[in-house]
Amino acid sequence: MKQKILLSYGSGGKYTQKFINNFILKNFSNEILNQLLDSAVIKLENKKIAFTTDAYTVKPIFFPNGDIGKLSICGTINDLLCVGAIAKFISLSLIIEEGLEFETVDKILCSIKKISEEENIKIVTGDTKVVEKGSCDKIFIITAGIGIIENNIELSYEKIEPEDVVIITGNIAEHGLAVLLSRGSYGFEYEIKSDCASLKSLIEPIILDNKISQYLKFLRDPTRGGLSAVLNEIVNKRKDIGIEIEESLLPIDEKVKNVCELLGFEPLQIANEGKIIIITKKNIAEKVLSILTKHPLGKNAKIIGKITNENKSKVVLKTTYGIKRIVDMPTAEELPRIC
Amino acid sequence: MKQKILLSYGSGGKYTQKFINNFILKNFSNEILNQLLDSAVIKLENKKIAFTTDAYTVKPIFFPNGDIGKLSICGTINDLLCVGAIAKFISLSLIIEEGLEFETVDKILCSIKKISEEENIKIVTGDTKVVEKGSCDKIFIITAGIGIIENNIELSYEKIEPEDVVIITGNIAEHGLAVLLSRGSYGFEYEIKSDCASLKSLIEPIILDNKISQYLKFLRDPTRGGLSAVLNEIVNKRKDIGIEIEESLLPIDEKVKNVCELLGFEPLQIANEGKIIIITKKNIAEKVLSILTKHPLGKNAKIIGKITNENKSKVVLKTTYGIKRIVDMPTAEELPRIC
Repeated sequence: MKQKILLSYGSGGKYTQKFINNFILKNFSNEILNQLLDSAVIKLENKKIAFTTDAYTVKPIFFPNGDIGKLSICGTINDLLCVGAIAKFISLSLIIEEGLEFETVDKILCSIKKISEEENIKIVTGDTKVVEKGSCDKIFIITAGIGIIENNIELSYEKIEPEDVVIITGNIAEHGLAVLLSRGSYGFEYEIKSDCASLKSLIEPIILDNKISQYLKFLRDPTRGGLSAVLNEIVNKRKDIGIEIEESLLPIDEKVKNVCELLGFEPLQIANEGKIIIITKKNIAEKVLSILTKHPLGKNAKIIGKITNENKSKVVLKTTYGIKRIVDMPTAEELPRIC
Repeated sequence: MKQKILLSYGSGGKYTQKFINNFILKNFSNEILNQLLDSAVIKLENKKIAFTTDAYTVKPIFFPNGDIGKLSICGTINDLLCVGAIAKFISLSLIIEEGLEFETVDKILCSIKKISEEENIKIVTGDTKVVEKGSCDKIFIITAGIGIIENNIELSYEKIEPEDVVIITGNIAEHGLAVLLSRGSYGFEYEIKSDCASLKSLIEPIILDNKISQYLKFLRDPTRGGLSAVLNEIVNKRKDIGIEIEESLLPIDEKVKNVCELLGFEPLQIANEGKIIIITKKNIAEKVLSILTKHPLGKNAKIIGKITNENKSKVVLKTTYGIKRIVDMPTAEELPRIC
């Protein structure tokens, strides 16, 4: 019989220690975590840090090209990149439903271990709670991350100006669609791979090069709510500018496009987990693009539009038919729920 | 009709923005959080920081003298104190069950706001997910905290030596019992108040005073698994020493003691949320005690035992009858489940 997680694993007693030894330390051993103190003590090389958190409740917990574990670490790395920081330390909180199989937990933790090692990240502190059956959906993972801002890069809504260029690092709408299709509730089987990935090696050369980074304005990973949500957030924050993007320039895989059409989804609203929107001054846009497209994760990167002086506080899409239409902040009804 | 949390509040679209504005920014506005970037950017005064996380799944979410919100912030503050750090920045992740009343969320966030303001802590980043009914028990709160280690205090299992003194900052077993009784499932009504509190103002004078802090060895808040778990963790990590504590010295409220006896609970195993175990060199133990007992949160602080050369890797309790017995790491069966 497969071994299962018991409530007692979260009780703070013997079984909790067993869980920490057999699952956590086995996978994530490092000199900071191994102290098993209430908090991790960290010496920083630099005084400017970035700090982020995300709660992962994705359903299903495994999907093509990823799982909730990989997602949680990649999401944290990418959130830190968006303020110009390189992820160094991550905290890992697990909320596990009683009865979840050991095998499942192990698979998820191995996936966290793999990506953390690849990206040179230390899991330095954590917490595990086990809740009664029905009190959580299999497993929730909540990460917080600390990253170091190596140079004096400052990215913000305020820096964005008309004529700035909007770049997306690759094909859109893949993660959300992958998750939705892997639920198998659409009456057909079709595999779309999630784009779930750490973008560290893609974005690092851009944020660490001062000649480029001084002209970077804003980075954001278009997760929940997709491109629509991020672009609308910008014009909501900065009502003195508009954004114009061109449909013909949007990188999207043909299969993804077809499935979106079939299911009536708007690709602009579908979540991505391995893409970043980059807004730069025009002078370095081509340079940034040439760096991105040399990297496997950026090979489909495209300039998709620009910041405008007109259509203030609006996101405008120039369709392939040449018609311009407003892209609104997605409402919940339009958004397929993925987490 | 009372307004309720909808799934759409976690969708990443319009309603998510509404939630952020009406709940998060309304309560926690500060110059870092208000940027609403993917990560908070923080400038630190000092290079040594502490980093911690905890997932709060307590049931019920409101209990005498606290709620899940107050608990999450106090727990984070206290975890940071345990490595000698003063909490400065907290991240706040919420996982909310669809249908939870606005009023409830508001009450919890107000309680977070209150304690954060009192303790001079900034909520600088966060995430909110709304999950389907039955996929979470009302609300889970997951915090991560960053604290600054102001002087060069170093606390660790390794520093503990025989003859060191074990202090507890006050009455034990109150939080766990308060939570259990507030479920109302024991067939009688009796209110015990949780000790849920931030211990910053109590512990700060001890960790910031170099004359004292150089002799501090180890701090730990005895939450899940209570005093038993913490003391056993120490002797499990440090098999070359033992710990002896005296039952007659253990501070415990008479009512709490009686209810524990009535319900068959071992007070040493019950969770605390406003107490810290302090292990110090003998020379400063009385000095530490005199500082603690002057503070309302430390008025019942007591020296309860010492580190021994004998009974290696064991925790020994000298009972009021003069008999010595081993206090084991609690097993799940013995531990009343509170979170």
